[in-house]
Amino acid sequence: MTSYILNFSPTGMLPSKQMNPHTPISVSEIIEDVLMAAEFGASIAHLHARDHKTGEPTCDLTTFAAILEGIRKHNKQLILCVSLSGRNVSDPVLRALPLTLDGEAKPDMGSLTLSSMNFSSQPSINAPTTINYLAQQMALKGIAPEVEIFDIGMSNYLHTLFKKSLLPQTLYANILLGNIFGAQPSFAHIAALTSALPHNVVSSFAGLGSYQLRSNTLALASGHGIRIGLEDNIWLDNARTTLASNRSLLQRITSIASHLERTPARPEQVRKLLGLHPGEGMYGLVQHVG
Amino acid sequence: MTSYILNFSPTGMLPSKQMNPHTPISVSEIIEDVLMAAEFGASIAHLHARDHKTGEPTCDLTTFAAILEGIRKHNKQLILCVSLSGRNVSDPVLRALPLTLDGEAKPDMGSLTLSSMNFSSQPSINAPTTINYLAQQMALKGIAPEVEIFDIGMSNYLHTLFKKSLLPQTLYANILLGNIFGAQPSFAHIAALTSALPHNVVSSFAGLGSYQLRSNTLALASGHGIRIGLEDNIWLDNARTTLASNRSLLQRITSIASHLERTPARPEQVRKLLGLHPGEGMYGLVQHVG
Repeated sequence: MTSYILNFSPTGMLPSKQMNPHTPISVSEIIEDVLMAAEFGASIAHLHARDHKTGEPTCDLTTFAAILEGIRKHNKQLILCVSLSGRNVSDPVLRALPLTLDGEAKPDMGSLTLSSMNFSSQPSINAPTTINYLAQQMALKGIAPEVEIFDIGMSNYLHTLFKKSLLPQTLYANILLGNIFGAQPSFAHIAALTSALPHNVVSSFAGLGSYQLRSNTLALASGHGIRIGLEDNIWLDNARTTLASNRSLLQRITSIASHLERTPARPEQVRKLLGLHPGEGMYGLVQHVG
Repeated sequence: MTSYILNFSPTGMLPSKQMNPHTPISVSEIIEDVLMAAEFGASIAHLHARDHKTGEPTCDLTTFAAILEGIRKHNKQLILCVSLSGRNVSDPVLRALPLTLDGEAKPDMGSLTLSSMNFSSQPSINAPTTINYLAQQMALKGIAPEVEIFDIGMSNYLHTLFKKSLLPQTLYANILLGNIFGAQPSFAHIAALTSALPHNVVSSFAGLGSYQLRSNTLALASGHGIRIGLEDNIWLDNARTTLASNRSLLQRITSIASHLERTPARPEQVRKLLGLHPGEGMYGLVQHVG
């Protein structure tokens, strides 16, 4: 397709003001960057919350609610995805907390990493029981999973989740390339990952660190969507001389996309594709799954 | 090459007498199956120890010593690899215990799984610090790692370990296919995994459950070695009507290999290839690494 999904990940778990002063940490900074990204054509925002005192990742519901409600005050169509990351929290019930948000704070999507794996400094543990629990909770609440795929096995496990009727009819996936313990943005690796995906999966490519630009460009040149933002990469150049901002990252990638005659899909189009409510106060899936 | 490495894995962590009465559990049963496999051409034996009362996996040094010494009493050339699996033990120091065995009980190799991942029922956690610690301990003691690769990221991490000078000049790897959270025995997946490997890696293919025969045959038909045994697969047929024994698995695969004009490499050849002592009372690497 000529239009592409632009998934915006402004904050993540790791970047700090010390590492990059452009990182949005406070509720208002995150809201502001998300609304700016929507002007660049973002249709999905992948949201992490940070503690307002320490700046550390938090599952705090009040913070998440303030972010989601703050964005929706200005933009009801943008698809909002909350991170259920287990990098710092292992209890599945705690991880699922943001799924209990309701009203204007109800997320459309929740992230779901499909196996355990290592990052360069620590393991990220997602036991089979945790994955199934989070998928069940999302199915019960009519929230769509945004699945996170770092390696072949994660693509492969999707077949099992579909058989368990835990996934919506059309599923959105991020394919994240360049983790030292994961697949890299090479043709052989991408072919393996994408060939293992079920046919009803719509995917965007993300790249970690200096692999972001390469992964995003491979996606744009091959018909896929992109995930982009400071969450994955804080530098603008490979030599790491210039810090990126979410704005500078979005400016560059949308410029490349327009050279390729690809335009960002509007949130309304992506809502229709993924079976999500059209963003008029009812969020999440139109039809519940499970 | 026409000769192939036959890596024999008789017991593993999961099979029990209840699941398959042919599973070797006691020290003498394991020794007997390993010596039988050597007659079929096995050059490496991948050894797990079991508690003599409960039959459960154990890191007990006396049990490991009895197995290694018992095999070497009859066969000094066979390359002996001890499992350092973390599926039931997380403390890296406990996991490294079998590396402290000495004399006729000193292992030639120790297993090293190169990331965290899920198996169908539980995660297997191998944090970056644990992997580096186990690799360092092996380098210090002159024991060669047998690396276990279930997905692309694990192939990829090898480059980092080589840069840290933690690996011998020629490295042996098992590529294990068919785990639900890992790569499958498809051409796309195998291409991705093997293309990510450094050039000085010699590899065998293993397959989990009913993927064993397929993975082993793909290996034999493509110039690779094989890992085979009840550890990975307890059934002889896809329909699961006939329980396998280590003997029946070895009989079938060596018969296929001989049709393909491939002969098992002798332990002496594999020792030379991997830089291991020629099996005359000095075990492990000829030249220490690190």
